[in-house]
Amino acid sequence: MRLAVIPGDGIGPEVVAEGLKVLRAVAPDVESTPYDLGASRWQRTGELLPDTVLDELRQHDAILLGAIGDPSVPPGILERGLLLRLRFELDHHVNLRPARLFDGVRSPLAAPGAIDMLCVREGTEGPYVGNGGVLRRDTPHEVATEVSLNTAFGVERVVRYAFERALARPRRHLTLIHKTNVLTHAGSLWSRTVEEVSAEFPEVTVAYQHVDAASMFFVTDPGRFDVIVTDNLFGDIVTDLAAAVTGGIGLAASGNLDASGTNPSMFEPVHGSAPDIAGKGVADPTATVLSAGLLLDHLGRADQSRKVNAAVAFDLSTRDPEAQVRTEEVGDRLAALAGG
Amino acid sequence: MRLAVIPGDGIGPEVVAEGLKVLRAVAPDVESTPYDLGASRWQRTGELLPDTVLDELRQHDAILLGAIGDPSVPPGILERGLLLRLRFELDHHVNLRPARLFDGVRSPLAAPGAIDMLCVREGTEGPYVGNGGVLRRDTPHEVATEVSLNTAFGVERVVRYAFERALARPRRHLTLIHKTNVLTHAGSLWSRTVEEVSAEFPEVTVAYQHVDAASMFFVTDPGRFDVIVTDNLFGDIVTDLAAAVTGGIGLAASGNLDASGTNPSMFEPVHGSAPDIAGKGVADPTATVLSAGLLLDHLGRADQSRKVNAAVAFDLSTRDPEAQVRTEEVGDRLAALAGG
Ligand SMILES: CC(C)[C@H](C(=O)O)[C@@H](O)C(=O)O
Ligand SMILES: CC(C)[C@H](C(=O)O)[C@@H](O)C(=O)O
Repeated sequence: MRLAVIPGDGIGPEVVAEGLKVLRAVAPDVESTPYDLGASRWQRTGELLPDTVLDELRQHDAILLGAIGDPSVPPGILERGLLLRLRFELDHHVNLRPARLFDGVRSPLAAPGAIDMLCVREGTEGPYVGNGGVLRRDTPHEVATEVSLNTAFGVERVVRYAFERALARPRRHLTLIHKTNVLTHAGSLWSRTVEEVSAEFPEVTVAYQHVDAASMFFVTDPGRFDVIVTDNLFGDIVTDLAAAVTGGIGLAASGNLDASGTNPSMFEPVHGSAPDIAGKGVADPTATVLSAGLLLDHLGRADQSRKVNAAVAFDLSTRDPEAQVRTEEVGDRLAALAGG
Repeated sequence: MRLAVIPGDGIGPEVVAEGLKVLRAVAPDVESTPYDLGASRWQRTGELLPDTVLDELRQHDAILLGAIGDPSVPPGILERGLLLRLRFELDHHVNLRPARLFDGVRSPLAAPGAIDMLCVREGTEGPYVGNGGVLRRDTPHEVATEVSLNTAFGVERVVRYAFERALARPRRHLTLIHKTNVLTHAGSLWSRTVEEVSAEFPEVTVAYQHVDAASMFFVTDPGRFDVIVTDNLFGDIVTDLAAAVTGGIGLAASGNLDASGTNPSMFEPVHGSAPDIAGKGVADPTATVLSAGLLLDHLGRADQSRKVNAAVAFDLSTRDPEAQVRTEEVGDRLAALAGG
């Protein structure tokens, strides 16, 4: 397996090291190549994602990314120029984010119940396309726009993917989250697409929630969700909510998939670079390890993926929730469990 | 006080009746005129908001609205044609939504702490403008767009309003919620505006959160928020989250303000028409009563407003959280408390 690794900024390198450790424990054939991308490269050279690097990345089976971002960089530079550029250039149209409340993990909810959902967030369209502009900047007549672009092609493929995932799960339930009563143009495309594709999946029950109502349900009744399909921006918000109610960002994994297999998919923890704790060895690498599990599953290594997930589930069920996380120790434990 | 009343659909008429009962108990000079708008009028006549009705509404000091919406009406018709049209035509640029965890109210959070925030949501711009369209509908080449429009004029007035509210509160803290790292055009306008206006309010401390991170904090640490300022769509989401963690939609009040005073402001519970429980007398009118409290405050009747809020606070602290709500009984109790 040829793996490109982008450790990135802040705690990125620390958690990626542990992710690789666990990956190697179950998949000894991993050949990894590190790529120096992120805030420090930009600070040093002004480069974000040189075309030659992008070409090299394309030659890999998958990409493992730690975290990108530093407070010293103005907002948008690294996000648009590196992280989102990777997602768009590599056609990562499925942003896959499972959220499960593991045994032994404390939820901030008083009565969380069983939570086990899979969020399928669209990754290459919507308000993330960067379309828009600023007119008469810094005058009282300034106008700033953001354009959300949604195509039948783009919506249909991610909706179909979500139905396929729902079909493969015990509950076979799919919830579309949008805001069709206000964003009527895009909302109509999303609703019609779900309705049409649902005809091919009669076994899957379908629900719809406006994003505001859905956000409440993440707090009051998250167990109602099985598979969720939603647009790029709503998905950004609800996946953080899903992470919050299942024990926080330290456990939230994600995959940016080109489901067609044309380009390598990219796996990254949902959390950011957390510069405040970087270098202290206290970042929880579990989200990165779970992302490595998604990576293995995506590459058709279901057995190896299961080992990683089982290791995490066991470790979480026996962790002392009061104890300070030590990044390396968690990685060592998980590698031993997964590889043993 | 000349009050226009739009009971609307579903539980709207029931909760509005109780809201009026409490309002009259503290403000005997209320002269109310009911307006028949909503799903049933549209079903009967095809009318949403006739211009003559809009003109009449303008002649009032304020508007009290119950709820608009019915599953028999396609999404967007009533929202765009009636509810949002009222907000836009009457220039309700401040959508004011307090969220406080009252004593005696159960939060779904295990450790909610003290929650007392005021969300100032922009009400006349952003992704709510209805700008956008659909090209090649129902073909594989369909494209649907939504345009978020943000103006210096519109952002500045709501940001200034939020700073004024923050200055008047003990904690004097304001949080901007946006997604400046992705929506860089609109995000830049919002950030720059907050920075500029903050120079006039040196006593107010300012924070910024991306909407995804903020959503997590609503679940993990809602007590950190004092005043929030945000755009129309993010405000829609985070105010439902704020409602969820402070005991739910049955308690969430809102005011749609033309802060300039040119047009009447409109007060409504955040909840919808809840057709499933309509007519059963079990809807909680508390959110409508608290909205009436906002109405009184907006009209300079601070004493009357305080009476309404104190009645609600007392009643909630003594309610049996297990007991079934009876709409009329709650209204009677609150009216007696507020008027007594
Ligand atoms: C860093 C940011 C651009 C990114 C996003 O908004 O997608 C992040 O929040 C995420 O969810 O992966
Ligand atoms: C009904 C809908 C148009 C409305 C909105 O999105 O503003 C509602 O959700 C609200 O928050 O008042």
